[in-house]
Amino acid sequence: MTTKEVIHLKVYLEDTDAQGIIYHANYLKYFERGRSEFLANFGYDMRDMQNGEHRFVVHEMQLKYRNPGRLGDHLEVVSTAQRSSEYRLSFDQKVRRRGEDQALVSAQVQIVCVDPEGQLVELPESMNIS
Amino acid sequence: MTTKEVIHLKVYLEDTDAQGIIYHANYLKYFERGRSEFLANFGYDMRDMQNGEHRFVVHEMQLKYRNPGRLGDHLEVVSTAQRSSEYRLSFDQKVRRRGEDQALVSAQVQIVCVDPEGQLVELPESMNIS
Amino acid sequence: MTTKEVIHLKVYLEDTDAQGIIYHANYLKYFERGRSEFLANFGYDMRDMQNGEHRFVVHEMQLKYRNPGRLGDHLEVVSTAQRSSEYRLSFDQKVRRRGEDQALVSAQVQIVCVDPEGQLVELPESMNIS
Amino acid sequence: MTTKEVIHLKVYLEDTDAQGIIYHANYLKYFERGRSEFLANFGYDMRDMQNGEHRFVVHEMQLKYRNPGRLGDHLEVVSTAQRSSEYRLSFDQKVRRRGEDQALVSAQVQIVCVDPEGQLVELPESMNIS
Repeated sequence: MTTKEVIHLKVYLEDTDAQGIIYHANYLKYFERGRSEFLANFGYDMRDMQNGEHRFVVHEMQLKYRNPGRLGDHLEVVSTAQRSSEYRLSFDQKVRRRGEDQALVSAQVQIVCVDPEGQLVELPESMNIS
Repeated sequence: MTTKEVIHLKVYLEDTDAQGIIYHANYLKYFERGRSEFLANFGYDMRDMQNGEHRFVVHEMQLKYRNPGRLGDHLEVVSTAQRSSEYRLSFDQKVRRRGEDQALVSAQVQIVCVDPEGQLVELPESMNIS
Repeated sequence: MTTKEVIHLKVYLEDTDAQGIIYHANYLKYFERGRSEFLANFGYDMRDMQNGEHRFVVHEMQLKYRNPGRLGDHLEVVSTAQRSSEYRLSFDQKVRRRGEDQALVSAQVQIVCVDPEGQLVELPESMNIS
Repeated sequence: MTTKEVIHLKVYLEDTDAQGIIYHANYLKYFERGRSEFLANFGYDMRDMQNGEHRFVVHEMQLKYRNPGRLGDHLEVVSTAQRSSEYRLSFDQKVRRRGEDQALVSAQVQIVCVDPEGQLVELPESMNIS
């Protein structure tokens, strides 16, 4: 069971904007794909997020944009996480070009768990990441 | 009760791509906003589409792209519709620049009604458009 | 050099809508990814589409929605094409679940070539697909 | 010349996800629409952002998600800003339901100016907001 997850993606026209770079909001999609795969390693299927008793939602997010990604880029999303309280899962994530070390964009993301009515609940015990 | 609906929108950076024009898939969002407002005139709130017994879904769509829209454009979506059978609602839609007559993109859209299990059902009787 | 291209993708939360299925406009993104990879086989890098003398744009599109895709699905986009005139490249495309034969959504897409001013130009000679 | 800008928008199917709420990345689109209108009050047309000597790009962003928006909601984006250095414009923004005071999502956004090569440049002098 890993606490580091790397996913790969390619930048298509849909990801870009008229400034000729990746539209800034789209990095949040990449980070979310990374977290989905990370959580899948702990047995949390995305489909349960839709229907199940626990839904993971973003509570807070801090983003730093350092360099723009561009059409045709091959990108990696690197995700690590730790349980920071009974209620919070803290992700450190970055998007970088394949083979490069420097992040284009980095994010710190606080995830919490809500029930189907949207009420905050404790993280599942199995979600014991350190 | 109108069978023609016009909505207005402005093109923001999110709508464009690295070719410097509106990304072609985004016109489908504009057409869907137009149909949502059209159906609202017949008492179909979007929220019912989410939870209710009838959900309107796209069955077929034909699109013609004539000229590209651009960042900052003020656009209009013009929608007309008629009930073409017990099961189908046929929309004629176009996107044009405000004050211009020629369409940038036009669409013919066949809408059908499904129940929560996704099975085809007849259109509601109230949806009697000619 | 292939005239059939298959790409794979996974459905994330970003792809879905409040009806619990893939938002209908997002299939156009999948088809566009498929065409980008198809054209890459003929030496057309997406980055040239941004800056070069030839840009491929969608001229007409016909879509049939047969079954909805859902969160977590593993999908394939199958693309074939032929040059239907000096000016048109005709794509047949479908999205299906991995391991299934039936299409969720199918599309016929007419692509044309424009110069940087947006004027129609002949397809490159190298684009000789039959 | 105002230093507070309020824009209005309606939540359509395109904005939502399979959790039945607004997809978290889409708030960044709303905030960007708000900043575009704010900057328009200072004479910065979005089209100049595409072609001109100065492009405004997001450098850092802090987001707090408090309550989810839903399909059909009427939302307001409230934006205020001040020049925090020669290089930075600091936006305080929030998204709230029409007629409500509490923010669904709030953001602090640091904007910088880059030239066409992506190099950091000073903010235009006219951008003198306090």
